[in-house]
Amino acid sequence: MDLDLARQLAIQNDTKILLAVIDGLGGLPHPETARSELEAADTPHLDRLAAESACGLTIPVAHGVTPGSGPGHLALFGYDPLRYTVGRGVLEALGIDFDLQPEDVAARGNFCTLDQQGRIIDRRAGRIATEQTAALCDELRTIELSGAQLFVEPVREHRFVVVLRGDGLSDQLAETDPQREGVPPLEAKALSPEGEATAELVREFVSAARKRLEGRQPANGLMLRGFAKQPQMPCFPEVFSLRAGAIAAYPMYRGLAKLAGMTVLETGSTFEEEIATLQAHWDAFDFLFLHYKAADAAGEDGDFERKMAALEAFDKSLPALQELGADVLMIAGDHSTPALVAGHSWHPVPFLLSSKLSRADDCDAFNERACLRGGFGTFPAVEVMPLAMAHAGRFAKYGA
Amino acid sequence: MDLDLARQLAIQNDTKILLAVIDGLGGLPHPETARSELEAADTPHLDRLAAESACGLTIPVAHGVTPGSGPGHLALFGYDPLRYTVGRGVLEALGIDFDLQPEDVAARGNFCTLDQQGRIIDRRAGRIATEQTAALCDELRTIELSGAQLFVEPVREHRFVVVLRGDGLSDQLAETDPQREGVPPLEAKALSPEGEATAELVREFVSAARKRLEGRQPANGLMLRGFAKQPQMPCFPEVFSLRAGAIAAYPMYRGLAKLAGMTVLETGSTFEEEIATLQAHWDAFDFLFLHYKAADAAGEDGDFERKMAALEAFDKSLPALQELGADVLMIAGDHSTPALVAGHSWHPVPFLLSSKLSRADDCDAFNERACLRGGFGTFPAVEVMPLAMAHAGRFAKYGA
Repeated sequence: MDLDLARQLAIQNDTKILLAVIDGLGGLPHPETARSELEAADTPHLDRLAAESACGLTIPVAHGVTPGSGPGHLALFGYDPLRYTVGRGVLEALGIDFDLQPEDVAARGNFCTLDQQGRIIDRRAGRIATEQTAALCDELRTIELSGAQLFVEPVREHRFVVVLRGDGLSDQLAETDPQREGVPPLEAKALSPEGEATAELVREFVSAARKRLEGRQPANGLMLRGFAKQPQMPCFPEVFSLRAGAIAAYPMYRGLAKLAGMTVLETGSTFEEEIATLQAHWDAFDFLFLHYKAADAAGEDGDFERKMAALEAFDKSLPALQELGADVLMIAGDHSTPALVAGHSWHPVPFLLSSKLSRADDCDAFNERACLRGGFGTFPAVEVMPLAMAHAGRFAKYGA
Repeated sequence: MDLDLARQLAIQNDTKILLAVIDGLGGLPHPETARSELEAADTPHLDRLAAESACGLTIPVAHGVTPGSGPGHLALFGYDPLRYTVGRGVLEALGIDFDLQPEDVAARGNFCTLDQQGRIIDRRAGRIATEQTAALCDELRTIELSGAQLFVEPVREHRFVVVLRGDGLSDQLAETDPQREGVPPLEAKALSPEGEATAELVREFVSAARKRLEGRQPANGLMLRGFAKQPQMPCFPEVFSLRAGAIAAYPMYRGLAKLAGMTVLETGSTFEEEIATLQAHWDAFDFLFLHYKAADAAGEDGDFERKMAALEAFDKSLPALQELGADVLMIAGDHSTPALVAGHSWHPVPFLLSSKLSRADDCDAFNERACLRGGFGTFPAVEVMPLAMAHAGRFAKYGA
């Protein structure tokens, strides 16, 4: 649905909507058992809720398109992921609660190990500890650039964020990460004439940084990618007339919610802490987004058993979510992360919506196969929010 | 499908298409029985026909969007309801067979009761009888406006239609109905500069009307809303190369068919009379639209049992429709009107298409759950006409 139509239809009432996102939810059948992670896992609460709810499968972006975390979440928030694109640098910056300004250019940085000829021999600098990265960032932050303010902030392990602030900056820059070892990092280059001045600033920064890092081990080099400015996006709470809160232990998902204009709540690093945060803030919001990371992490590692366990752990927490008594409770995924793929995939993602106004269907369990019998069918993830609004009685009638 | 493509593909032959629209067809499960109105109703003819036909569910406008009667019908006629929008005033005017001209501005009027301070105390003037409204319209019709011709026509109970005819009129006017009691009707105001002159005419009319109504009880005031001109719409008979007739007992549905350029046939107020009209005019048309209102009316009243009865009454008439021998017989709904909601809803609507060229599917009954197993799946209502044309052999091959 076009967000202008959503804005036009949205009305306020006292209902509550809970969107629980199991990251990387969808899977693929294990070659030996022909059962997917969800089918093999023991998830009695999810299965029972699915039998009582309206189910289906979401297509995150388009048929055959494997989404990154950005598009997968934006679609669930109602944004057409082909229209609203978020650069990696922006995601990383927002994810560490960096106060990004509209004209800032952000990039994701990786420390790496270079040999004496300046060729990359480890693209992750041995995954150095976050504390080491923080110390290196302290050092690099003191570099002075001609005509732009510089921020260098640690993320996790070897990862950091570089932000340039100044007049007339552009994100039309190619990455300096060659995406392989045995060659030197690439020189920063503009992708269009308007990127030239910013490319020069980045070359200036990289050159100074290389001098500061010289002789250090293992992090004696750096690579930058995902140069990006904040996209211009409609504000979720304004479009849907919802007081919207977001709860996510991982930085990137907090960043996505912040980009959409949601209130990002302080929480801990475990799902139990996330749920405690949810309970504590339940009354203050109309809509809450709750993010569960463990399923994706296990899928990314190609660990079928651990992904099963992650799904079972979520299932154990489901009664606590149900007890909150949301008028619309949705269990969704941003994309599939089948252990068989050991990465994101394009496969449609199981979806469940529980409300008083859910229509009965023949889906009696929460997995890829059963959800094919769901009443929503296989539909675009971008329609999740319109369906949530309708089931919450928050959309007015269209036309006379 | 874009109507330009439909126009390009349409060819003529001697087949006949019957589109029977059960208004408000779709429902929701009864909380006690978990069966919807269609599932609970005894509809042997519909079930048998569904088993022999290709079925599915239509999405009237978009996921989560509850349509008014206008968008719901326009979609079934092949018009994108987000592109072609019909204002309330136009619908009401067409529905009483008013001969609306392209530049006319129409508004829906309500008589109301005002207290001595001019504040609304009954927004429907006690739902006065249609005859009383007709007499009041006779009176108001004699008001003379400077620079525009005035029409005031009764609809039903306290409802009437005002039409202004003249040069340079605009429908850019805000409603004068404050949508609540205890306050006076609003003054007519333009929504844009081009609406100023028309707003002045409306204020002139309202002022004169107030004087004529003064002292009358209960209808001593009036409110106007839905100021609208006719939308510019392609002509259905021309787009699809079909001689198209419409049979509807209720004014609004006749109005919608007229807007699409169909020939609206005189008929009686009962479904039996509608069917008699259908039989009498069968030979003269290639396409006939037949409207059945009772299911929606019962759903709007939240009366599950009466909606069941209305569906059963339709079922009893189905053999008479089948006997006509249409090459393509469709049973569709403009939207869902679940008794549980006591109003329109966004839920997809059962759909059935019977023809020699229907492909078999696993749908063995005509209800929301069974139609999920239908061969058409869940699809936009705007595709109903293209499917009808194809099954009637009235669409040429696309491309060499």
